[in-house]
Amino acid sequence: MMIVVMKTGASTKEISAVIARVKKLGYEAHLSDGEERTIIGVVGDGNIRAHQEQFELMEGVERTMPVSHPYKLASRDFHASNTLVPLNGGKVGDRKIAVIAGPCSVESRQQILETAHAMKEAGATALRGGAFKPRTSPYAFQGMGEEGLKYLAEAREQTGLPVVTEVMEPGLVPLVCDYADVLQIGARNMQNYALLHAVGKAQHTVLLKRGMSSTIEELLMAAEYILSHGNTRLMVCERGIRTFEKYTRNTFDINAVPVLKERTHLPVIADPSHATGHWQYVEAAARAAVAAGADGIIVEVHPNPEEAVSDGMQSLTFKRFEQMMQSLKRIAEAVDRSI
Amino acid sequence: MMIVVMKTGASTKEISAVIARVKKLGYEAHLSDGEERTIIGVVGDGNIRAHQEQFELMEGVERTMPVSHPYKLASRDFHASNTLVPLNGGKVGDRKIAVIAGPCSVESRQQILETAHAMKEAGATALRGGAFKPRTSPYAFQGMGEEGLKYLAEAREQTGLPVVTEVMEPGLVPLVCDYADVLQIGARNMQNYALLHAVGKAQHTVLLKRGMSSTIEELLMAAEYILSHGNTRLMVCERGIRTFEKYTRNTFDINAVPVLKERTHLPVIADPSHATGHWQYVEAAARAAVAAGADGIIVEVHPNPEEAVSDGMQSLTFKRFEQMMQSLKRIAEAVDRSI
Amino acid sequence: MMIVVMKTGASTKEISAVIARVKKLGYEAHLSDGEERTIIGVVGDGNIRAHQEQFELMEGVERTMPVSHPYKLASRDFHASNTLVPLNGGKVGDRKIAVIAGPCSVESRQQILETAHAMKEAGATALRGGAFKPRTSPYAFQGMGEEGLKYLAEAREQTGLPVVTEVMEPGLVPLVCDYADVLQIGARNMQNYALLHAVGKAQHTVLLKRGMSSTIEELLMAAEYILSHGNTRLMVCERGIRTFEKYTRNTFDINAVPVLKERTHLPVIADPSHATGHWQYVEAAARAAVAAGADGIIVEVHPNPEEAVSDGMQSLTFKRFEQMMQSLKRIAEAVDRSI
Amino acid sequence: MMIVVMKTGASTKEISAVIARVKKLGYEAHLSDGEERTIIGVVGDGNIRAHQEQFELMEGVERTMPVSHPYKLASRDFHASNTLVPLNGGKVGDRKIAVIAGPCSVESRQQILETAHAMKEAGATALRGGAFKPRTSPYAFQGMGEEGLKYLAEAREQTGLPVVTEVMEPGLVPLVCDYADVLQIGARNMQNYALLHAVGKAQHTVLLKRGMSSTIEELLMAAEYILSHGNTRLMVCERGIRTFEKYTRNTFDINAVPVLKERTHLPVIADPSHATGHWQYVEAAARAAVAAGADGIIVEVHPNPEEAVSDGMQSLTFKRFEQMMQSLKRIAEAVDRSI
Repeated sequence: MMIVVMKTGASTKEISAVIARVKKLGYEAHLSDGEERTIIGVVGDGNIRAHQEQFELMEGVERTMPVSHPYKLASRDFHASNTLVPLNGGKVGDRKIAVIAGPCSVESRQQILETAHAMKEAGATALRGGAFKPRTSPYAFQGMGEEGLKYLAEAREQTGLPVVTEVMEPGLVPLVCDYADVLQIGARNMQNYALLHAVGKAQHTVLLKRGMSSTIEELLMAAEYILSHGNTRLMVCERGIRTFEKYTRNTFDINAVPVLKERTHLPVIADPSHATGHWQYVEAAARAAVAAGADGIIVEVHPNPEEAVSDGMQSLTFKRFEQMMQSLKRIAEAVDRSI
Repeated sequence: MMIVVMKTGASTKEISAVIARVKKLGYEAHLSDGEERTIIGVVGDGNIRAHQEQFELMEGVERTMPVSHPYKLASRDFHASNTLVPLNGGKVGDRKIAVIAGPCSVESRQQILETAHAMKEAGATALRGGAFKPRTSPYAFQGMGEEGLKYLAEAREQTGLPVVTEVMEPGLVPLVCDYADVLQIGARNMQNYALLHAVGKAQHTVLLKRGMSSTIEELLMAAEYILSHGNTRLMVCERGIRTFEKYTRNTFDINAVPVLKERTHLPVIADPSHATGHWQYVEAAARAAVAAGADGIIVEVHPNPEEAVSDGMQSLTFKRFEQMMQSLKRIAEAVDRSI
Repeated sequence: MMIVVMKTGASTKEISAVIARVKKLGYEAHLSDGEERTIIGVVGDGNIRAHQEQFELMEGVERTMPVSHPYKLASRDFHASNTLVPLNGGKVGDRKIAVIAGPCSVESRQQILETAHAMKEAGATALRGGAFKPRTSPYAFQGMGEEGLKYLAEAREQTGLPVVTEVMEPGLVPLVCDYADVLQIGARNMQNYALLHAVGKAQHTVLLKRGMSSTIEELLMAAEYILSHGNTRLMVCERGIRTFEKYTRNTFDINAVPVLKERTHLPVIADPSHATGHWQYVEAAARAAVAAGADGIIVEVHPNPEEAVSDGMQSLTFKRFEQMMQSLKRIAEAVDRSI
Repeated sequence: MMIVVMKTGASTKEISAVIARVKKLGYEAHLSDGEERTIIGVVGDGNIRAHQEQFELMEGVERTMPVSHPYKLASRDFHASNTLVPLNGGKVGDRKIAVIAGPCSVESRQQILETAHAMKEAGATALRGGAFKPRTSPYAFQGMGEEGLKYLAEAREQTGLPVVTEVMEPGLVPLVCDYADVLQIGARNMQNYALLHAVGKAQHTVLLKRGMSSTIEELLMAAEYILSHGNTRLMVCERGIRTFEKYTRNTFDINAVPVLKERTHLPVIADPSHATGHWQYVEAAARAAVAAGADGIIVEVHPNPEEAVSDGMQSLTFKRFEQMMQSLKRIAEAVDRSI
């Protein structure tokens, strides 16, 4: 459904031309004549948005306004109840809140194994760690690659924690699927459509991060790409957006949590590490996420942030992570959930 | 303290000229010679920022970087412990979280009295209500003016709730002080310096809202204007910033809560109503604010939002407000506070 | 005119309630029944926007969409031909492009007189200079006040250049009118409504700057405040908006020039100094402004930017200003205008 | 080079630890002792940025400030004179301004051939047209794929115009190289590092578009990825950024033109079509781009925008394109260039 707003003083001929086009495309036209101007409702099945700009360019048309949302499979209108995504024996999207924790990058076998055991001990649901790293600079550490994946898999064997790791290109999806339990699509790749198609086809669990300047609607459209392959093991993640504020790395769009919970049936994860960029604020942001209704958090932890090759600034020590877990448990209970 | 970064290949003469200027202004110059370039540390007491651009324009200078923060009185460096602002027998900034609630606009005697009693009943700390309204359109309702202030004062007499209301121009500060307990500076006026001076001089309690595209630093600089008059009965308020996201009226910068708590001793209030713009998200945002460490919230409530002359979309009914209070109490306890 | 979009599955009762309210308010309701949902066109004279949120809160309503613009007097629909604002014997908005030039702040009698003569010589239309300065920091230079106004008036007497200067509070409008030809409303005060009313009533020429995070629509609504007092000697000014980009002080929204020229009859001025924040980019930005159709520019020039007490970074020397004027003349001719 | 700012009151032990780390990493440490605080300059060759966060996390450190830019090969410091990129017998980056024109999408053989002839006739330098289309919606037209590439190649044969077309995934780079003269990296893929590496290795001419919320620095870092493969046939393109303004599709960051010309030796292209999103504003934006110093523009033209399957709103008709070319010629001459 779409509305076509005619200009003040649009001629009968112009109005008729719009109506004719509406009918030609197989829709019905509903006319509202105001004193100022006329509007035409375009009603019917089909993807009328594909023709929106065409109507907007017709003589006498001021603008058009689509009425329905552009996403379908991701919408609660399409699927009312929460989609539950299996993870580590539980289900993300259910009462229990998932905690995915670990270092930004896998740096060594020792580092990831040590972290995995500490996360397990502290009650995490899954282990994160990057083997392929998207870096702003070509001169920065780009990740350990397959070697890193192997260490992650070893950490899973030792601890039982499922592994979440980023995949950056379609050609590497099969490799990463071999080692990882959850494929992460990073913020920079939220609209990398070839990659979205590839992970959709893989039928592997996916954690899809919001782009740093993407709207919530665009995030749901990116989810739609993956869902269109019938892959519903999908979680969406708010990780902070880019604004003018300089005291934090990103601005945590906490509103996105209730907005997403209202609009989509998919589990909503929050990333307080990237959303703030400074470890001092991570616990407060994580508490806020749980209080606002997030189904899980993904957080960066490092055995020794001062030595981290990436994201040290926003990484928690094991001790701070444990403290945060205690604090989050209390918040979870206050919203009738658990961790 | 400031750093002057010289260009690659800056001449000895250019470097000497910078050093000479530093000394002439009464500061010391500390030189660091790199292979690539030279930097000069400018050290000493005084407002070196006032000269920053002048240095930046000198021959051979690439850029300058101030080291210290531009605010002083608002900083925790200057005043380490929390400033406590008296309100309704309690102290904002202390363990108990303040809840300021009421309609966007005072619309009638009946409306404000009814709301005041309901807020009192539900446990609010103070009553909000606008008598002078900043409106984007000159054709929109501009508030009841002094008549509105009188109704607010009557509501206070009946309920004991202190009154928070906006003042929009320096000339009206004395009038508003006569009726109100707390003067609100709205987002649009955060950098209305004549008004900041006026409320600073008035020595009346002030609630200062962050501008919709102001940085946290600018908010603290605006606070500095008020503090510079010796008026420390001051609370700062995060109310959402303007971004590209369209599903909400503003983007609630939840990070601002821990950032402000770290940087300033002033109480930090959050406004989940303006920060979201839709009543459906207000409770989640309020929970997030308390979980993140806010000292209070200011929230819009209306006896009948469908009939509100302004901000109906983001106003809670009495019933929803009561539910939110129950929910906030649990979150407050989870962070060792109370409401 | 407004459109009310009902939710999928809205009941007949809910639809009837909306229609009843439309009629009660004195409007006509036009119904369009789609398969998915129903929309209701609200048609008639009057300020239906004032009721928009009320409709949006009714049971069964998904959202509302206003069809007409919120501004009237500022619109080309209301006044099709260019409004011409008299300045220095010419008319801003006509073929000849106005150049308003001078220092950020009046710093001394000598400085402003010297600048005025140089600007006159180089072909400027008017002299700018701040006597009352809005500064982020209370510790920064706040302007010379009335003394500065006197020097500006003296500069006008000596050179014949009309004076453009900022007024920051309603109480000072009469004083500034005594000395200045054009009252500037700064970006921070674009939504200082008391001030807009005051300059509207003063019937003095006004230069209204866009707020740093204001939309073009809000700028036109601010203009509407001034126009509502019958004061049409009004120019609007694009001066850069706040974004995430850090290499420049602001982001010059060059699109605003053709957008404003299309939507309003008021002259459109551009401020390449604030829009860039660095003198190196000012000439390129000024050329772009003229090429895009601006009716004038306002630019900061200083006899010695290295010694300027404010905005030295973005100030042109006299020599660079003269070069820019030569360059702008050629661009002006290329768009069939002159300087 | 980097500066480490110590906290007020940092201990001698903390300062020594920083210095020790600096030396351990092979750099020199230059100490500046202020009354308030101490700063340490880190001087030496090497990628000190890789350790920035590590220093920032040390005890007693307040923050760190890198002094040099993160890009090298893309910088004018590295390569002072303009890089000239061969295109259609001329050189982009030289005096003559390149005009790349054509439809958003290749829709049919007829459409692209007709457009190619019209563009050739009107004086364009190259033909644009998308065969692989990144679309927000999986339900929107995704491009004709290889068939589209074949039509583009045929258009080149008939007109002699080189072909510019987008490549969206590393696996398709060889295919697109077979048909196209210039590989376009779209805004959504500016930080698709696998793709940047692939086009770098391909040694094919590349047009790299700025991401919609990328900083100029990030654009140059993306360029650095391509340059790091020795591929210098590279143009960078400003195409509008995402802000809060709603009257245009994007905000054209015209400042980026002079900023890029100052910082990089690479040719700077502007895209007035995406930067505005409405054909009415395209000519004004294109004039602004040329006036500001762009080396070329890329613009969308369609034989019949009302029937375009994508971007019809921002496409020029042939006639409007011809008018724009006349207008741009005059602007080009006014800045001592030609088209």
